[in-house]
This record gives sequence, structure tokens and C-alpha cells, in this order.
Amino acid sequence: MKTVTGFASATIGNVACGFDVLGFAIREPGDEVILTLHDSEPSTSPVSIKAIHGDGGALPKDPKKNTSSFVVLKFLEYLRTHKDIDFQGHIELELRKNLPLSSGMGSSAASAAAALAAANELLGSPCTKMELVHFAIEGERVACGSAHADNAAPAMLGNFILIRSYNPLDLVTIPPPQHLYCTLAHPHIEVRTAYARSVLPRTIPLKTATEQWGNVGALVSGLLTSDYELIGRSLVDVVAEPKRAPLIPGFYDVKNAALEAGALGCSIAGSGPSVFAFSSSKETAEQVGSAMKEAFSTIEERLDADIWVSPVCHEGARTL
Amino acid sequence: MKTVTGFASATIGNVACGFDVLGFAIREPGDEVILTLHDSEPSTSPVSIKAIHGDGGALPKDPKKNTSSFVVLKFLEYLRTHKDIDFQGHIELELRKNLPLSSGMGSSAASAAAALAAANELLGSPCTKMELVHFAIEGERVACGSAHADNAAPAMLGNFILIRSYNPLDLVTIPPPQHLYCTLAHPHIEVRTAYARSVLPRTIPLKTATEQWGNVGALVSGLLTSDYELIGRSLVDVVAEPKRAPLIPGFYDVKNAALEAGALGCSIAGSGPSVFAFSSSKETAEQVGSAMKEAFSTIEERLDADIWVSPVCHEGARTL
Repeated sequence: MKTVTGFASATIGNVACGFDVLGFAIREPGDEVILTLHDSEPSTSPVSIKAIHGDGGALPKDPKKNTSSFVVLKFLEYLRTHKDIDFQGHIELELRKNLPLSSGMGSSAASAAAALAAANELLGSPCTKMELVHFAIEGERVACGSAHADNAAPAMLGNFILIRSYNPLDLVTIPPPQHLYCTLAHPHIEVRTAYARSVLPRTIPLKTATEQWGNVGALVSGLLTSDYELIGRSLVDVVAEPKRAPLIPGFYDVKNAALEAGALGCSIAGSGPSVFAFSSSKETAEQVGSAMKEAFSTIEERLDADIWVSPVCHEGARTL
Repeated sequence: MKTVTGFASATIGNVACGFDVLGFAIREPGDEVILTLHDSEPSTSPVSIKAIHGDGGALPKDPKKNTSSFVVLKFLEYLRTHKDIDFQGHIELELRKNLPLSSGMGSSAASAAAALAAANELLGSPCTKMELVHFAIEGERVACGSAHADNAAPAMLGNFILIRSYNPLDLVTIPPPQHLYCTLAHPHIEVRTAYARSVLPRTIPLKTATEQWGNVGALVSGLLTSDYELIGRSLVDVVAEPKRAPLIPGFYDVKNAALEAGALGCSIAGSGPSVFAFSSSKETAEQVGSAMKEAFSTIEERLDADIWVSPVCHEGARTL
């Protein structure tokens, strides 16, 4: 019997102009997955779920339907077909869900990445993190119906991850500037990813698209050259934010509050309802957090919001 | 009487995925503009055109309609309204047109930038290059009906220039990797910018747009980190190239020839008909040029093509 605990943190996808192509990991909060290896052969599935904490009973316990166990099953299948490793034992999985569901914080990706980091170490680290990313992305299909990578990839690899292409998968790691801090505000409402996707148009004007990709290029340049002002000017989303903002009560109040408190820029985290902002110092990022919390609490809906301040995580998923 | 000669080189706009937002300058060929300052007051216009060489009589000689003189008039107007410099003399302009017209090589932008570099020095350098860029962009409106900046800005400033925003104008300079070479092939046909623009769709699928901006981000990352392979993989245009390729006889034959000869990537220069390719050495870039010339010459239309091999120009417009 051997036990390994995996950890992966919250990630923010759809980074303003980087809709569907750019995400990054923060250091905390994150999900923990504890895997225990038993030598005995499994009765039905090689992976079973022992317990899930912190989800309020919302997540499925069927190993094929729960993201964290599903990705471990995919990992084992890959070992058998690609690495000639035929796993005969049984893995018991315990999930400590610290990230809120449907929050825009990459909750399912964190569970998947944590499970994969643990499973890989449990079996002697046969895979690289880049190989594991593929299973983490497959997990997103189970969790929300679409195998998007902008949470799964940074949850596994850390840093900013740009998805140049899905087919073949081509990921570009962009290390964050040294003094970049993220403030994340999670208001206590849920927005389903599938619904947030349904409000988007299927086609957009070429002029709008051009504006968006000018900002994507500039954001990447700002990140790579530590040009904080340019990062701020590039955090513009003319495609998804205008459509999704109405799903988040008080979004523009919160955004304005963040900018007035000194944030470089502010937009919707993933598909919402969380809102993120960047600042060029920890002190400013904390003031921005207070301003965002205050703004959520004073709108008509008087929303309570959790606030986290964190640098971008370099490390990605790891074992504890 | 004082004479100054300005020079600005060819530029390539619409760099594959960077449609309307990314352009770069090469070192040669380029246009020359010779300005001569006379102290006598002008009879009608403060700028007159003395001669134009190399245009086959195609360019207008009315100072308000010719791009190179028009931008000098705009520059003088700006000096009067913003710098309190009331120019009382008369400038005579001679244009040595070395770039072919309607070629996709930024011909009008080169004339404008060369004229502005000369005019600024002639009057004691009252403006920065960044101020001059605005007039060069205005020149594009006269030349082709749209004030696009992806030729005018690199013609003036050199390097790769990313246009983050037009309003306000926000330009990001991206210095090229040390060993990046451009091969430019100009087949002897003309494609009018306005016509090449008319074949583009007004709206595009969101999925297509997302693919394009993933490539834009990756291209900027490749350029800034000297990742030549990534530059090659990112030189993908799923928006304009498929629509404009039919305007260039043999485009895909030429592109395939370039790639087979070792180019990192290949696409249409500006709105065509010129085709550019990147390579990671001068030797390869020259082989690529031979392959492109050969490919143009063996299609049914048997097109002759001029070939230039050049690194990216750091300097931008200058005086000789």
C-alpha cells in the first residue's frame, strides 16, 4: 500500500483577449487528490472513489464520470497501450475539493491535474507533464462537454500557457513577469460553462476579430518583456466579455473598482462568475481585492465574494 | 538651398496570422525621396513635385494627391498647429520609385516614410519618428483608401511592428531574432489593395478567429524568444490567405516550393501578389528564393519574379 497526494491550483482561462487560447495558474487555492495503491486486483474498475470532500455532494462518484478518476483511467490505458505497462492493482481516490464548482476558477482542471500528478508518481513517473496534459484536457470533456485546454494545460504545467493549436496540440509556455500579481474575486453565484458558451455568437465581424488578435499579440509581448503598462492596455476583450458580463451581477462596477484601485486590467475569469485583475505589486493587488469585494457587496444583489491574491504559479501540478 | 535624401525600404504587412495588425521592414529594396528647400515663398503649394522616376508615369504629380508630397504637407500643417513652426519656404520633391506598385511590398508606405524622414531633417528634426508615423499612415489613405498602419509603421520605425490599437494608435515594436531572414518574391503581375480587400468576408466564424489569434500570440512569442520552429508553426493564416491565394497564379506551388527548400513558413506579402518566406539562415533564404522563382516560372502562366533576400531592418526610414 502506497499513498501519494497530488495538488493543482486554480487557473484562469480566457484571459481577456485570449479567449479559448490563453490561461494561467495561480499558487492558491487548489484541489488535493489522495491516491492509494492497493496490490489486490480490482473487482470492477481499476480506480474507485473513496471519498469526495467539499463539493456538497454535487460531483459524481462513478469513476468513469468523475473528472479526477476518469483522467487516471485514461492515464492507465495510455500506459498499457503506449508504455507497455499493464497495471494490475487498484487505486483508491480521495478528492479534497477546495475550489468552488462552476466558478470560472478551473475547478475541474485542478482536480484532473492533481489526480494525474499523484497517479504518475504513484506508478514511478512513467510520463512527462506534457504527456499528462492530454489526459487533463480529456477530463474537461467529461466535466463540461468540451475538451478545452486553457485551464487544464496551465493547471498541469504552471505559468501562462498559450494554445497555438489543438490539432495537433501545440502549447507555448509564457513565464510571467516577476512582479505580476493576480487578484481573483469569486462572487457566491454559479455560472455554468456550457451556458456561458451558449451566449457567444458563432460568427464575429472581421474587424472585431482583428482588434482581438492585435490585443493577443500585444499581451504576449507585454508578458515576455515585463511591460506592465502594455499588459494593462492589452487586457481588452471585445468578443466574449460584452456577452458574458450580463451573467455576472455588478461586473462593470467590480471592474471599474479594480481599475480605480490601481489594477493594470480586469476581466472575467474563464466563463465566470469569478473576476480577475492584474497588478504590478502585491500591495496593489490586495487593495484591488478589497475594492472588488466592496463593489460586489454594494450592488443591488449584495453578493459576498471570496478574494485571493497570488503571483502566477511557475510549477503547475505537483505532489505534496 | 538645402537638399536631403530620405530612404525607406519595402515592408510586408498582414504577416500571415497577423492580418491588419503585424508588419515588418526589410533592408532593401526601397524608395528614395530627394527634397530641396528653397527660401522663396511658394506660388500655390509649399510642396511641389519636380520629378518621379521609375513609376512608368502612373503616380499623380498633384502634391495633394501624391502620397510622398501629401505626407509632407500634413507634416508642415502639424508643425504650424502643434509646434508653432510656420514654414514660409518652398520644398521641391523628387521621387525615385524603386518599389513596384500594387506589389504587396508597401510601395506607398516607403515613399511616404522616405519623404517624412527627409522633410524632418530638412527642417531641423522637430518631430520624433513616432510622431511621423501618424502622417505616414495618413498617406496610406491617399494611396489606397484606407489608413492602415501595418506597412507605414514598420517603414518608418523598422523591426516588426504590432498594431495593438488604431484608436488611440498603440504600436508595439518587436525586434527580430538575430538569424531571421526574409525571402520576398514579386511576380510580375499587379493586385490592387482595394480589390484584395473586397474578397475578404465581413464576418468570420468565432472558431476561425480563435485559431488565428492563437497563432498571432504564438508568432509574437516565437519572435521574442528566437524560437524559429515556433515562428514557422505560427505562420498560419486561416482568414485572408485562403481568400486571396486565388488572386496569385501558382501561390500554393510557390509556397510548397519555399517550404520544401527549407523555409520556416510562407504566406502572402500584404495583399499580394508578392509572397514572403522566413528562414533561419541567409543560405537557406537564398535557396528558398531560387525555389520560389523556379516555381513561378513553371506554372501555366510562366511568371517572371524578382527575388530579394534580406534580414529584418532595425532602423526604419532614414536620410542618406
